[in-house]
Amino acid sequence: MSKEIVLTGIKPTGKVHLGNYIGAIKPALQLAGAGDCTSLYFIADYHGLTFIQDREEFNHLSYSIAGTWLALGLDPDRVIFYRQSDVPEIFELSWILACLTSKGLMNRAHAYKAIHEQNIQLGVDADTGVNMGLFTYPVLMAADILLFQSDKVPVGKDQIQHVEIARDIAEGFNRIYGDTFKLPDYMVDESTAVIPGLDGRKMSKSYNNTIPLFETPENLKKLISKIKTDSTPPQEPKDPDTSNIFLLYKEFAAPAQVQDFRNQYLSGISWGEAKQELFQVINAALEEPRKKYHELMAEPEQIDAILCEGARKARALAAPLLAQVKSRIGRYK
Amino acid sequence: MSKEIVLTGIKPTGKVHLGNYIGAIKPALQLAGAGDCTSLYFIADYHGLTFIQDREEFNHLSYSIAGTWLALGLDPDRVIFYRQSDVPEIFELSWILACLTSKGLMNRAHAYKAIHEQNIQLGVDADTGVNMGLFTYPVLMAADILLFQSDKVPVGKDQIQHVEIARDIAEGFNRIYGDTFKLPDYMVDESTAVIPGLDGRKMSKSYNNTIPLFETPENLKKLISKIKTDSTPPQEPKDPDTSNIFLLYKEFAAPAQVQDFRNQYLSGISWGEAKQELFQVINAALEEPRKKYHELMAEPEQIDAILCEGARKARALAAPLLAQVKSRIGRYK
Repeated sequence: MSKEIVLTGIKPTGKVHLGNYIGAIKPALQLAGAGDCTSLYFIADYHGLTFIQDREEFNHLSYSIAGTWLALGLDPDRVIFYRQSDVPEIFELSWILACLTSKGLMNRAHAYKAIHEQNIQLGVDADTGVNMGLFTYPVLMAADILLFQSDKVPVGKDQIQHVEIARDIAEGFNRIYGDTFKLPDYMVDESTAVIPGLDGRKMSKSYNNTIPLFETPENLKKLISKIKTDSTPPQEPKDPDTSNIFLLYKEFAAPAQVQDFRNQYLSGISWGEAKQELFQVINAALEEPRKKYHELMAEPEQIDAILCEGARKARALAAPLLAQVKSRIGRYK
Repeated sequence: MSKEIVLTGIKPTGKVHLGNYIGAIKPALQLAGAGDCTSLYFIADYHGLTFIQDREEFNHLSYSIAGTWLALGLDPDRVIFYRQSDVPEIFELSWILACLTSKGLMNRAHAYKAIHEQNIQLGVDADTGVNMGLFTYPVLMAADILLFQSDKVPVGKDQIQHVEIARDIAEGFNRIYGDTFKLPDYMVDESTAVIPGLDGRKMSKSYNNTIPLFETPENLKKLISKIKTDSTPPQEPKDPDTSNIFLLYKEFAAPAQVQDFRNQYLSGISWGEAKQELFQVINAALEEPRKKYHELMAEPEQIDAILCEGARKARALAAPLLAQVKSRIGRYK
């Protein structure tokens, strides 16, 4: 029996922060480490084109997100790590799938619907600000997934619908042309806690409350010092389980350290001291990745070499399937 | 100064008939024969996928349309003749352009609008029967055109809007990323007369009044005998310029023959004789192409060899431009 195929798409968004790391990157890396499946990871740079139209930014974000994952331990010898724009088969398949996808299905996709409804509320044309990349994105995502016969697709809750759409499209193709595509399932990690930002709300760029992953130690310290705390006096006992500092600490410290820290809370620790401890543990955990990240970004050809080798492997998987698909639709000799 | 680039897309529709030949194929072949431009001709097979979801039909129509053009004299040594599905660069560019194309532009495309309005009139969901291939087709056509820096695109009137859309998309790209794409112009042959079908209305598959191009002589004769005529008695003079038989005759006969035929009309010719003359001249003109067509269809590997060589040339033109486009959007090292 062949191994399960797990496909993880990585969107090149801005500076990666602790929330991204704890909520998405760390669990994804653990999955790759488990090794009982074939793991594919790809930088969805051409998805990014639906919202980035600045060439410097587009370029930087792709390298930077690839560098981040590599620095955090993604091992390109154990997984297939590639850049979407290096695999032309995806775009050809995307066209083929588009011809089998009803427009109604796209009309109902969440991301589009949200903008559409907002536009209507604002009293402007319903499609204001919607480009065709954004509108057809679920078809491209279906091609991303189906081209590799993915069994599982780990996603955030907001992406569940897209995996369902990919499944619908695969079923439609199989119905018309015979069994060709595997039907993918989504995987949602329900266990992940919401990572609080500096102000206590969910850490998110849109709240401007993030702690970026690869800050200098000085900046990291400064940011941690800004984490909102209550006015409990320094010596009084504190509840670790309602403390954002404690929550972040748990994600980086060893179990024994966590137990220790919990005891300090219960016996009374000042917020200043707690923040200092948090800084120590985060800084220790990120010291090596940070160094590695800056090394990679200083020599992006290293990143390119890794991604190109990944694309070679990905294309070797993709090409025979695309050939089969083309034969199924009638593009045979 | 480099030669103008003229790009002609060929849709794989059903059996080619005299109307297609006279109205589209003949003028396009004359253009290729002129030789003062670089001519690209391509079988838009992946466009066809928006409406053909039967693999046998898809396969047959692609070979059959390619065989038809080759049989009628398209010279693959003088033009670049390829199949869209052999040029993956088109689909990658299509995605890039989609991200720069507002959805509103597609909402206003004629083909989509017509179906949309019809659905509304029928009281069904406005997007009933619309697949994403059909909806995004103008973006793919823009990629078809822009990838080769086409100067001129000969089209029927119904396709003018699509060339204008390609132009809009090119302008948008150039504005954001700097001058990259040539702005294409459409070419419409206004001189072409409407070719009458058997019943006198425009020859069209939807009227079921066509004379297919490569019928057996027997069938051709039988079909011509069905051309509608009036009840003018055999010996009476007839007006050549209102006669559909004469109109078709002109398209196939030499000028001296045409003059002769005109005189016969003026001095009185029976419709039966006129049809016999028309049969002779059409049959003579199509005898060789018909033979060639059946030879090609009996050995489709000949067609494949020609199209693959064409695709090789097309990709050699496309690849450097796509590389430039990718660099412009930020996909550089």
